[in-house]
Amino acid sequence: MTQTAEERDHNRSGRREAARLEYFSDCIFAISITLLILNVSLPAAGANLTEVVRKVLPEVLGYALTFFMIGVLWTQHHAMFALIRRTDQVFLLINILYLMCIAFLPFPARVLGANAGGIGQTAAAALYAGTFLVAALVFNGLWKYASCGGRLLHSGADRSAVHTMSRSHDLATVLYLVDVALAFVTPAGSIIMFTLIAVFYAVTPIPSVARSRLLRPLLGPPPKADTE
Amino acid sequence: MTQTAEERDHNRSGRREAARLEYFSDCIFAISITLLILNVSLPAAGANLTEVVRKVLPEVLGYALTFFMIGVLWTQHHAMFALIRRTDQVFLLINILYLMCIAFLPFPARVLGANAGGIGQTAAAALYAGTFLVAALVFNGLWKYASCGGRLLHSGADRSAVHTMSRSHDLATVLYLVDVALAFVTPAGSIIMFTLIAVFYAVTPIPSVARSRLLRPLLGPPPKADTE
Amino acid sequence: MTQTAEERDHNRSGRREAARLEYFSDCIFAISITLLILNVSLPAAGANLTEVVRKVLPEVLGYALTFFMIGVLWTQHHAMFALIRRTDQVFLLINILYLMCIAFLPFPARVLGANAGGIGQTAAAALYAGTFLVAALVFNGLWKYASCGGRLLHSGADRSAVHTMSRSHDLATVLYLVDVALAFVTPAGSIIMFTLIAVFYAVTPIPSVARSRLLRPLLGPPPKADTE
Amino acid sequence: MTQTAEERDHNRSGRREAARLEYFSDCIFAISITLLILNVSLPAAGANLTEVVRKVLPEVLGYALTFFMIGVLWTQHHAMFALIRRTDQVFLLINILYLMCIAFLPFPARVLGANAGGIGQTAAAALYAGTFLVAALVFNGLWKYASCGGRLLHSGADRSAVHTMSRSHDLATVLYLVDVALAFVTPAGSIIMFTLIAVFYAVTPIPSVARSRLLRPLLGPPPKADTE
Repeated sequence: MTQTAEERDHNRSGRREAARLEYFSDCIFAISITLLILNVSLPAAGANLTEVVRKVLPEVLGYALTFFMIGVLWTQHHAMFALIRRTDQVFLLINILYLMCIAFLPFPARVLGANAGGIGQTAAAALYAGTFLVAALVFNGLWKYASCGGRLLHSGADRSAVHTMSRSHDLATVLYLVDVALAFVTPAGSIIMFTLIAVFYAVTPIPSVARSRLLRPLLGPPPKADTE
Repeated sequence: MTQTAEERDHNRSGRREAARLEYFSDCIFAISITLLILNVSLPAAGANLTEVVRKVLPEVLGYALTFFMIGVLWTQHHAMFALIRRTDQVFLLINILYLMCIAFLPFPARVLGANAGGIGQTAAAALYAGTFLVAALVFNGLWKYASCGGRLLHSGADRSAVHTMSRSHDLATVLYLVDVALAFVTPAGSIIMFTLIAVFYAVTPIPSVARSRLLRPLLGPPPKADTE
Repeated sequence: MTQTAEERDHNRSGRREAARLEYFSDCIFAISITLLILNVSLPAAGANLTEVVRKVLPEVLGYALTFFMIGVLWTQHHAMFALIRRTDQVFLLINILYLMCIAFLPFPARVLGANAGGIGQTAAAALYAGTFLVAALVFNGLWKYASCGGRLLHSGADRSAVHTMSRSHDLATVLYLVDVALAFVTPAGSIIMFTLIAVFYAVTPIPSVARSRLLRPLLGPPPKADTE
Repeated sequence: MTQTAEERDHNRSGRREAARLEYFSDCIFAISITLLILNVSLPAAGANLTEVVRKVLPEVLGYALTFFMIGVLWTQHHAMFALIRRTDQVFLLINILYLMCIAFLPFPARVLGANAGGIGQTAAAALYAGTFLVAALVFNGLWKYASCGGRLLHSGADRSAVHTMSRSHDLATVLYLVDVALAFVTPAGSIIMFTLIAVFYAVTPIPSVARSRLLRPLLGPPPKADTE
């Protein structure tokens, strides 16, 4: 009987560990994303509305883009953890490296905002896309480690979902790599491509049926699907 | 049997997703609201108490107002999530856009504090109320998407509560719109109206019976209602 | 049957609300307490160890004191929530006002650090203790509202524990009031008294038996008490 | 029956307390680790990629090292809490002191980054390693208090795991002490040793079997171990 209670404790602590790691990661995502607003600098006192808008608009757009992209990365991290059954020390360490990239993102975003339209914008755009590239590589490693042979996945994890996720992460790496290269040709083009990548990964998880449905008036009746 | 376990896993992961999104949102609300204090600037060294009070009072009042309003928005987000049964990718994306507005709020608050009484105060007041207007519009879209035809709501969600919430969010949009317009006429009036909106939405969820009861001495015995 | 499921949903959402409020509060406590380190200013480049220590020591001591006190306030908030069964809108609003005080604390801490030993230290010490006084008054109101007639408490909440907590909060208000007054006589004395208050409230919840036991060598065997 | 419900409430509140303390600690770890990015200073506008890299590289490396080490400390705190059954006021206070050290870490990290290669780097390296030494001493005290005679541990906690953890924490204290001393001889050597300590504590929890397995190609099949 004591043995059984110990086993139960062990299983519970296993679940606790995965949940606590997920919680810790969420916290870091949330803080990084919220610190972005500190990058938007105060307009000079006494400026009128037009001046305020002209001055802060590039920084605000940069805020919106980076916020949106980190939000999308969070949903991907979230989707991965939904398939994870347990963690181990290696997974934990790779996850810390990934969080190191996420928590770093406010810096390239600040550099980009400070160099918009200036002569440093090539370096800034390359640093910006390059940081996301490194993050994608680490995330890829995290997922490969967890999913290889189903190492840390739920036994019931859908094989096609696992395969789709792997291909999606491989594609992201390639896209960011192209985007970094593009920064040296045209910084503005690099940012535009980056925006398209963000929108692509935001929209992809929506099933195509639902996507076509979005084109119908928003207030039309939803399908009578999955009642609890 | 395996199928059943998979289904259970699926349901559990559905609940996990809603809870994790709510948690992530709470975190961002909490960080935004706490970063507001960084907007209060340090008085010059060696100032006496009177000088300190006179200098920091407008910034402190702005801190209190914005903090209170974000707190009220949090309770509304909270009330909405209490009716939500599950999430989907579209809901997640609109929620990220909403959090983008919430995390943005420390910026207009800083602009307002820096321009209090100065010639830029019209622009500052308009930006301040305007940001809350945009947040209200996005929140309205979030709620419309979730509630339309009961798409993401609990099957047992009270119809009249859903209807009341919809009307309340519509009203908020109109009130903020009027407040933005008012900023161009009288910035101070815009802030006063904003304060009244905050108080209105803070007090509205208190049932009128309880509100009249608040007028009785605070230490009087509470009603013998809803024992658990 | 449907009715029962709805009731269960209602109870669950009641518990969810209290837990979510507690979680949100914890988050704000954690962020406030962590932002304190931003108040410690960087020593000039090229300073040797002695200079670094002399320069940053007052700020570091201020950091430690404020951190410790906010930690103690968190344990009190924590102890209160352990007795709370449910929340309502009034409780939520008073709690937001309380969090507004907590999130404000990094500011008076910064003012105090910047004015240590200078002519503004009377104002700084008064502002510092005064903010804690206001926080204590709001916390007192929060507790009175929740505990009066057992309004929001667990039905099984220990009456003597409730009474002790009330008296403890009343005492805190008086102590802070004396401390604010003391700041106008001797700022340094005010800080010393403040430190003693912090230690008093940190140590008080330790039962006297355990306290005497602390005097024994730390590594001695603990009592064979409450096995799970 | 009422008595039994009260007991159940009491046990639940015991578990709640440990969970809430763990949650609060995680939050502070997450915020400290994320604030580190604020230490990386913006390169001058108009700098090209080479200049940006040369200027920010030391600060970025410092960011990565400190982030990684705090991540490792978090996993140790996490491993300790997995063995903790309940908390008491003394444990809570020592934990607050420990969090005070963790939340302090962004400051020595900033000092180190600002003094890299300069004449203040001896003081900076000593402060950096010294802060981790103090943190290790407090963590040691926390663990000794919790584990002595099994005071706060799960009754089923593995004795050898408890012993290993104690020895590991003792070793950490010695290593940091040597590292502080080394800073006065060679600051750069101190940082290199610090990096080795971080890697050592990151890798140690990985069982040696798994470590040798890491040398095999990452994509090879994992062992068919512990199915849920």
